[in-house]
Amino acid sequence: MNLQHISWTTDGRLRYLDQTHLPQQELYREADTVDAVIEAVQALRVRGAPLIGIAAAMGLTGAAARLAEEELTRDWLRRAVDRLAATRPTAVNLSWAMARMREACDRALREGGGKEQLVSGLRAEAQRIWDEDAAMCRAIGEAGLPLIEERATVMTHCNAGALATGGIGTALAPVYVAHESNRQVAVISTETRPLRQGARLTAWELTRAGVPVTSIVDGAAAAVMAQGRVNLVITGADRIAANGDVANKIGTYGLAVLAWAHGIPFYVAAPYSTFDLSTATGSGIPIEQRGLEEIDTARGASALNPAFDVTPSQYVTALITDRGVIEPPYTETVPRIIRGERITGD
Amino acid sequence: MNLQHISWTTDGRLRYLDQTHLPQQELYREADTVDAVIEAVQALRVRGAPLIGIAAAMGLTGAAARLAEEELTRDWLRRAVDRLAATRPTAVNLSWAMARMREACDRALREGGGKEQLVSGLRAEAQRIWDEDAAMCRAIGEAGLPLIEERATVMTHCNAGALATGGIGTALAPVYVAHESNRQVAVISTETRPLRQGARLTAWELTRAGVPVTSIVDGAAAAVMAQGRVNLVITGADRIAANGDVANKIGTYGLAVLAWAHGIPFYVAAPYSTFDLSTATGSGIPIEQRGLEEIDTARGASALNPAFDVTPSQYVTALITDRGVIEPPYTETVPRIIRGERITGD
Repeated sequence: MNLQHISWTTDGRLRYLDQTHLPQQELYREADTVDAVIEAVQALRVRGAPLIGIAAAMGLTGAAARLAEEELTRDWLRRAVDRLAATRPTAVNLSWAMARMREACDRALREGGGKEQLVSGLRAEAQRIWDEDAAMCRAIGEAGLPLIEERATVMTHCNAGALATGGIGTALAPVYVAHESNRQVAVISTETRPLRQGARLTAWELTRAGVPVTSIVDGAAAAVMAQGRVNLVITGADRIAANGDVANKIGTYGLAVLAWAHGIPFYVAAPYSTFDLSTATGSGIPIEQRGLEEIDTARGASALNPAFDVTPSQYVTALITDRGVIEPPYTETVPRIIRGERITGD
Repeated sequence: MNLQHISWTTDGRLRYLDQTHLPQQELYREADTVDAVIEAVQALRVRGAPLIGIAAAMGLTGAAARLAEEELTRDWLRRAVDRLAATRPTAVNLSWAMARMREACDRALREGGGKEQLVSGLRAEAQRIWDEDAAMCRAIGEAGLPLIEERATVMTHCNAGALATGGIGTALAPVYVAHESNRQVAVISTETRPLRQGARLTAWELTRAGVPVTSIVDGAAAAVMAQGRVNLVITGADRIAANGDVANKIGTYGLAVLAWAHGIPFYVAAPYSTFDLSTATGSGIPIEQRGLEEIDTARGASALNPAFDVTPSQYVTALITDRGVIEPPYTETVPRIIRGERITGD
């Protein structure tokens, strides 16, 4: 892929590709305060469930590095971690990454040593989160590869690609691995209103990687399915409940129902860190409501703008994880993923 | 409603509200050549299946009125009617209106007389098409009223309202009649990408009429249905085949499947002129493909932009027409509408 959409600056701050300007412009920014990281995540300059966890961990490290020794207290770190974790409520990866950073802080503080050791502990943990995510993406791609036949067309929604992760993506990982294997895979990318991540980001990164991609408006998905153009659907996830219910970008649930009505397999690809056993079903997942200005309707009209929806697990053919592909009953198979079992074969 | 979205100028030309500028601006234009009318229809300045039939008839009349007596030949009229009829392929109302104008020409030419009589014959027929459409809208509203209970929320797609017709709309006609009857009806309007007729036009005209309206992106329809917010769905139609299959704005078919999956009644409202007995099923309806620039995706990516889709009749709970509400089996009930029977009761 050769994307530099997140990186460390030479002096250890977070540098990121501002995704709100894609595909017109590749604009890079730096964030070296907690406020700047929060702004980047809330304004969706950095977005995608796995990526915001990585970026928050790197941003926290860079912000800590800039402080004077006496400012870098346990209280400052606690507050910074809590504020970053609360930036977006739906994706579980962010709170998962922040929990890891909190542990890294505690470990470094227990071991004593000064600012340098503390920052170095944070940096190592942030880098591990990133490296592990890249490895998980690759593992998802390899697990999903058998689901993609020669000349298959995959429909996807929003962007769960390289731009959303620290590696080759989640939903798009099997596509990239299939492309590497010369399976002549093609993608149909739904626009994903209101913020158009499908038309802007998924189309951009697939084109850049040489994968043929066709953009459609969200409303055209059903017609395109009825025409027999879609072999399978793969989306990402922001959180997966213990029973397999999936919270993901608004529109995912509708695609799942339509895929089911057309007899098309519907897969969700996500690393194990997206699973949340403490949430029993999808109804327990908080759904972020975003600003009504994103809808841009007539003056005097109201708007509803949920950023995510919940797909009940009965519409999910299988979950593609870094630990293998799991099928229903999810109440039995999801805990195996969490326990770290590797599911083999398909 | 008190909309002046089409009218005659004092010297008999077509004046229309350019709907591409709504809701920001109420910009009126005049079209006094066949080319100008075709441009207005193709650029969707005038849109909506019934309205483009009316506007083409009025525009033809105004264009004929401007010609010198010797230019206004049978050949000119034939060619003008054929070109206008071919402007957009999916809506049957346009070719239906042009067939009526062709007959009016023939009648006037048979009766002899000069340009003045010919133009006056055209104007009378265009005005009849308009007046009849307004009456059909009102009749659709009254036929659909019993389907709308007190405090019902109606989901609709695109704009099949006053702006799409010469009266109070088709899909929105039952809403307006229910509003007049103080039934506290509310509307959820899907944005309708790519051209956003729902967020721009439906939200605008309902707000103007005092009907509460909430805009959502197309992808949010399934989640909003799952939350129990929708009591019924009503859309318009561009063409209805003899078996009840419905061609309408892209996205309609998906909403129909989703309504079915959620146990929500799905109605299609249209005047009898939208029915096309010469088309046996939806597969025989030509689907207009519009420009790919409407999709605005990343450079190098492809796009598909069908303007319409076909909803198989099994997803249509009932058809609300100016001659009453008809239910399946449509192969039996549709011909009754065409024969002009009035269906009573609901």
